[in-house]
Amino acid sequence: MQVDIVSSRGKVAVQRFSTKNPVFVCVISHTATSEIPGLTIAGANPELVQYTPAADAEFLYYGSCKCISFVPATPDGKPTPAVITRAALRHSGIPAFVVDAGAKVKPSMPLISMNVDPGRNIASANAMDLSTVHREFEYGVLIGMQLGQLSDLVVVGESIPGGTTTALAVLTALGFDAKFKVSSSMPENPHELKNRVVASAIARAGATPGGIDSPLKAISFLGDPMMPAVAGIAEGAMSAGVKVMLAGGTQMTAVLAILKLLNRPLTRLCIGTTSYVTKDTSSDLNGLVGQIAPQVPVLSCNLHLDESGKPGLQAFAAGFVKEGVGAGGVSLAAMLKSKKVTGRKLLKAIEKEYETSIEAPRTSNVSLSHP
Amino acid sequence: MQVDIVSSRGKVAVQRFSTKNPVFVCVISHTATSEIPGLTIAGANPELVQYTPAADAEFLYYGSCKCISFVPATPDGKPTPAVITRAALRHSGIPAFVVDAGAKVKPSMPLISMNVDPGRNIASANAMDLSTVHREFEYGVLIGMQLGQLSDLVVVGESIPGGTTTALAVLTALGFDAKFKVSSSMPENPHELKNRVVASAIARAGATPGGIDSPLKAISFLGDPMMPAVAGIAEGAMSAGVKVMLAGGTQMTAVLAILKLLNRPLTRLCIGTTSYVTKDTSSDLNGLVGQIAPQVPVLSCNLHLDESGKPGLQAFAAGFVKEGVGAGGVSLAAMLKSKKVTGRKLLKAIEKEYETSIEAPRTSNVSLSHP
Repeated sequence: MQVDIVSSRGKVAVQRFSTKNPVFVCVISHTATSEIPGLTIAGANPELVQYTPAADAEFLYYGSCKCISFVPATPDGKPTPAVITRAALRHSGIPAFVVDAGAKVKPSMPLISMNVDPGRNIASANAMDLSTVHREFEYGVLIGMQLGQLSDLVVVGESIPGGTTTALAVLTALGFDAKFKVSSSMPENPHELKNRVVASAIARAGATPGGIDSPLKAISFLGDPMMPAVAGIAEGAMSAGVKVMLAGGTQMTAVLAILKLLNRPLTRLCIGTTSYVTKDTSSDLNGLVGQIAPQVPVLSCNLHLDESGKPGLQAFAAGFVKEGVGAGGVSLAAMLKSKKVTGRKLLKAIEKEYETSIEAPRTSNVSLSHP
Repeated sequence: MQVDIVSSRGKVAVQRFSTKNPVFVCVISHTATSEIPGLTIAGANPELVQYTPAADAEFLYYGSCKCISFVPATPDGKPTPAVITRAALRHSGIPAFVVDAGAKVKPSMPLISMNVDPGRNIASANAMDLSTVHREFEYGVLIGMQLGQLSDLVVVGESIPGGTTTALAVLTALGFDAKFKVSSSMPENPHELKNRVVASAIARAGATPGGIDSPLKAISFLGDPMMPAVAGIAEGAMSAGVKVMLAGGTQMTAVLAILKLLNRPLTRLCIGTTSYVTKDTSSDLNGLVGQIAPQVPVLSCNLHLDESGKPGLQAFAAGFVKEGVGAGGVSLAAMLKSKKVTGRKLLKAIEKEYETSIEAPRTSNVSLSHP
C-alpha cells in the first residue's frame, strides 16, 4: 500500500487503480473567458496567459519551451506544475501525448489535433457551437478507444487557464452547487469574481442555475473546448475496458458531471490530484464529487513539496498553483505503477527537474546579461 | 509457425517479430508529383487522387469515408487496400493512429499533426525545405518514442499517391539502383515515365545519381513528406527498444535507405508487405532491400485473395493495387500476434468488411437512384 496516496473511498479504491502501463494525455485549450482581468494567474502577465498551454506542452517533451523563451510561471515566478508532471513521466517511463483542443498558440511538437477553435468568452457569447462539441466528444472517444487498447490506465490532464470558471458555469447550469467550491491557482481564490462572471454568463445564455439538462448543451453555452475532449477520451478508454483517471482539480468535476449525465457507467473512473487541492480550504473537490457521483474515488498524492529547499516548489504546498498539466494524476500513476515510488522519491526527481530546467537556465541567463 | 508468412531471412526472422500488443500508425501525405498524368491510379480520376489519403484514413476508423461519398478506388472500381487494413485491425484488436504529414485534404477524425505542407512536384521544385525535413523527422522520433513505451511492435504504413516515384528519386540520388524495381498500383508498371520524371527531377535539383550522400537532403530535394515522418517514427520506436515494421511495398525501401544512411542500427527493423508485392515480376522489393540493408528481413503474407469470390479482392492477387495503407503489415501483425490467425481466416474477415463497406453501400446507392 502506498503511504503517500489518500483516497476518498478507502484503500480498496487505490488498489483498483493499480497499473502496469499507464499513459498520459494532456489536453491543451484556450477559453477567452481567461482574458477577464483577475480570473487567472496562469502566466506571468495577461498577454502571456494564452501561451501557457503551448509552453506547458512543450515543456513536457523538451524540458524547455519554444513558443516563449522561459518556463510558464505566475507573475511572481512560481513555475508551472508541468515541472512535476515531466519529472514523474520520466522517473517512471510513462508515455505522454498532447491533444490540441482549441489551443490559441500551437506548441512546436507533434499534436493530436481535435480541429477546434479556442472557446469564446462565456460572459459575452456561447463557448462553442453544439455541433463542434459533439464532434470533439466523438473524436475524443476515438482517441480513447485506441489508447485503451495499449494501456490499462489512461490518465487525462489539462492545461487551460481560466478553466475553473467555465467549470463553475457548467456545474451551476447543470444543477450542482459549486459556488465557493472550485479551486484557484491563487491562494486568495477570487470566488466573488467567478460567481459574478458565471451569473452573467448564465443570464446571457438565457438559462438558469440547474436549468440545462443536456451536458453537451451546457458545454456549448458555458463550457470550454477542454471539456468534450477529456470527456470523450475518458468515455472511449472506459468503453475499451480500461481504467481512467481524470487528472486535475475541480475543473475535472465538470467533466465528471458530463459523463454522469450522459449516463456513462463510472466504475472504472477516478479523479487524481495533489493533496494541495484536496486539502485546500478555499475549495471543495471532495464535496463536489460527492454531489455528482459519490461512488467515484478522489485519489490524491502527497509530494512533500513543503520539505523542499526550492522556494518555487514550496510555493505549491503553500497554496500557489496547486495542480495543473496532470501533475497530481501523473505522480499518482507513477506510484500506482510501482510501490517503490513514494512521494519523497518523486520529490527528489522533481527537485532535479527543477534544477535542470528552472534554476540552470535562470543562472545562465543572468551570466549572459552580466558577462 | 505461421504458414502464411514468408520471410526473406528465414523462419527465425519471423519469430523475432512475434508481438503481444502491436500498434499501427498510418502516415498520410501528398506529393504534387502525383499530379503528373499517368503516374498513379490511386483514385477514380486525377482530381480524386488528392482525396485518397484522407479517405483511406477515414475508412480505417469509420468503415466509410467523409471527405468523399464513396470508398477510394481505381478508375475501374478496385477498392483501396484500406479494406484489408481495417479488417485486420478489427479482427485482431490492433489500435491505429493516423499521422497527418502534409495531406492535402484533411480527414474528419483526430489526427497526429506533423504541421507540414504537402510535398512539391519534384520535377519542378524541391520537395520540402531541409529545415522542415529535420523538424518532421524529430517530431516522428517523439511520436515513435511514446508509442514504443506502449507497444512491442510499431507497424508504420502510408497512404501517399505517387510515392513510388519519389522513392525511386531518393533511392537513385542516394546511389541505389532502383530503376525498374519500384512497384506500381497498376499491373502495367509505368517504369519509363517514372524514370523520365526522376531523371529530370535529379537534373533540376542540380544533382546526379548517387551524388547526394545526406539522406535528409535527398528527401528535401527529391522525396516527399511521408518519408521523414515514417523514418522518424521508426527511429523513435527503435530507440525506445521495440520492434518496427515498415508496412508497405517498395516505397518503404526509401525509408530503409534513409535510416541506413543515418547509421541507425537496424536489428529491430523489418519490412512487412503482401505476397502480391514480393511476387510482383514488374518490381523487385527483395532486390532493393538486398542492396540497401540485406540484414533487414522482408516479411510477406499470403491473404489468399485469389480464392475470394469478390472480384474487387481477386484484383489484388491479379496485380492491381497490391498494397497500401499498411495492408500487408497490419495483416502480418495480426498473424504475428496470434498463431491462430491465418491468411484464410483474415480472408474471411476481409470479405465480410468488403460486403459491409463496399457491396452494401453500392446496393443501397443503386436502390436510392432507382427507387
